[in-house]
Amino acid sequence: MKALRVESGKLRLAELSIPAAADEALIRVTRSGICNTDLEIVRGYAGFEGTIGHEFVGVVERADGFPEMVGKRVVGEINVGCGECELCRKDDPRHCPSRTVLGIKGRDGAHAEFLNLPARNLIEVPDLISDEQAVFTEPLAAAFGITEQVKIENATNIAVIGDGKLGLLCAMTLRLRSNNVTLFGRHASKLAIAEKRGIEGVVDVGASDMNRRFDVVVEASGSETGFARALDLVKTRGKIVLKSTFHGKPQWEAWRVVVDEITIVGSRCGRFKPAIDLLAEGKLDVTDMISEEFRLDDGVKAMAAAAEKGILKVLLSMG
Amino acid sequence: MKALRVESGKLRLAELSIPAAADEALIRVTRSGICNTDLEIVRGYAGFEGTIGHEFVGVVERADGFPEMVGKRVVGEINVGCGECELCRKDDPRHCPSRTVLGIKGRDGAHAEFLNLPARNLIEVPDLISDEQAVFTEPLAAAFGITEQVKIENATNIAVIGDGKLGLLCAMTLRLRSNNVTLFGRHASKLAIAEKRGIEGVVDVGASDMNRRFDVVVEASGSETGFARALDLVKTRGKIVLKSTFHGKPQWEAWRVVVDEITIVGSRCGRFKPAIDLLAEGKLDVTDMISEEFRLDDGVKAMAAAAEKGILKVLLSMG
Repeated sequence: MKALRVESGKLRLAELSIPAAADEALIRVTRSGICNTDLEIVRGYAGFEGTIGHEFVGVVERADGFPEMVGKRVVGEINVGCGECELCRKDDPRHCPSRTVLGIKGRDGAHAEFLNLPARNLIEVPDLISDEQAVFTEPLAAAFGITEQVKIENATNIAVIGDGKLGLLCAMTLRLRSNNVTLFGRHASKLAIAEKRGIEGVVDVGASDMNRRFDVVVEASGSETGFARALDLVKTRGKIVLKSTFHGKPQWEAWRVVVDEITIVGSRCGRFKPAIDLLAEGKLDVTDMISEEFRLDDGVKAMAAAAEKGILKVLLSMG
Repeated sequence: MKALRVESGKLRLAELSIPAAADEALIRVTRSGICNTDLEIVRGYAGFEGTIGHEFVGVVERADGFPEMVGKRVVGEINVGCGECELCRKDDPRHCPSRTVLGIKGRDGAHAEFLNLPARNLIEVPDLISDEQAVFTEPLAAAFGITEQVKIENATNIAVIGDGKLGLLCAMTLRLRSNNVTLFGRHASKLAIAEKRGIEGVVDVGASDMNRRFDVVVEASGSETGFARALDLVKTRGKIVLKSTFHGKPQWEAWRVVVDEITIVGSRCGRFKPAIDLLAEGKLDVTDMISEEFRLDDGVKAMAAAAEKGILKVLLSMG
């Protein structure tokens, strides 16, 4: 089968045998989505080598012990826990210390014709969700996961920093809970996608009249300056949600966090089920975030396209 | 009257007239406590000029409209709000944007024979609390304020970084809620004060076998390296409470906050009533934290003593 791999720091399309992990299901991938984490892995983040990709939709080809799963269209939770630690026993392998993560850590990923995941990680996709929408389940879960961690009400005044894929999904999902969401970005075309959904778009030049106005500020820009801007925007006793895994070491005015009793919440993965429910209930249409679709054969080209400025989601199709 | 003042960046004992702010009570100070913030103000923190000191106990001499207060022994909340903003109307002037703060911001402080505060800021001290204990009300409230912000249970595994006054008070108050408190410090004599109260004392040399073991880590060292150490010690999904208002700009590994979904909570002032209750119920004896007591006349000398290594609380007496 074909697979888009990072090997010795190089990205290439490789020919591999179909994966056959014992005790895991085999999924034929139909579509996958390119995430900024994929781009970071090519730059050396986390030292991962192997098949990249962790956003996918596919069809179960084999699932020993779970015959009812075969033929089902599924998405899959990307963290595979040990199954034995305290967190795994509480049904939350997202933080299992010995977890593997699809296409990110110790486990080949989704930019391939086939992948393995434990059957317990798979969630069936309702018929009324298209493949193009279903492939957004993972990033949508990550965005909507904020609502698991921070109380969001109708009147909560929310700022999202960054109009990339993650920032847009955060703004769009938070808008389902709050009437007051402002997206700070740099690209009129991306802000327009948010504005169609009742989100205020602001081309941010650091205007001080916005400072200290927000109850919750989500940092989703992935830039080193994003955190300082979040500190500017947040109210006394407000909350900053850190959503981007950038790898700089930002300096910060720690005194303001103390004096104004600000809370900073690190936020990574969310649960898939609430994200699928959002899509199934038609509460969110994400398809206008798709910039381009490539065949897996053109995966290297697709990754280059995904890295261009102004581009949102790039999909790969394997069909 | 005599007052210990910072003027043009210099500390000196000055002779002033007795303060007479309209609509405020007049308190004859009997004892005050020197806080690290006082030392920082002398170094230029917050640009404050005037009489320093914000930890005190005294007797009400005059309180127009509140005759029942006269002659009462009191402590006083240090934040004076505008009385009109949203926070003040919710009875929480601690974050009023136009607040003054006793001996810290826009208001002469407590290292003086007399001070003014609004009568609503004063709280009567029960007879069974000595002056030496009552003067700890403000820092004790700040330490105990952590329990307003972070859920602490019997089994919560807590680390406190810093064996200075603030770190000790944090460890001692948190020990009243949890059976598992470890204090990381540098001074055997200070750690011994904690150990008498069932707190584990550790002379920290950054040993990695303690890493990622704590549900809650309180940074009370005031050093730039304290935050990095807190990140080492905290568990996945744990909480870091920032208690020290140091003025460096620490660098931090922001990625770990995101990947391990750590929460950082800025924490400053607490409420006085719960702190007085702790003292009145005899749950906490803080008097072994008093290193020395000076007369206000020797205030400059007292400040020098408070800045020495190994010294805990230095009191001033005005009687």
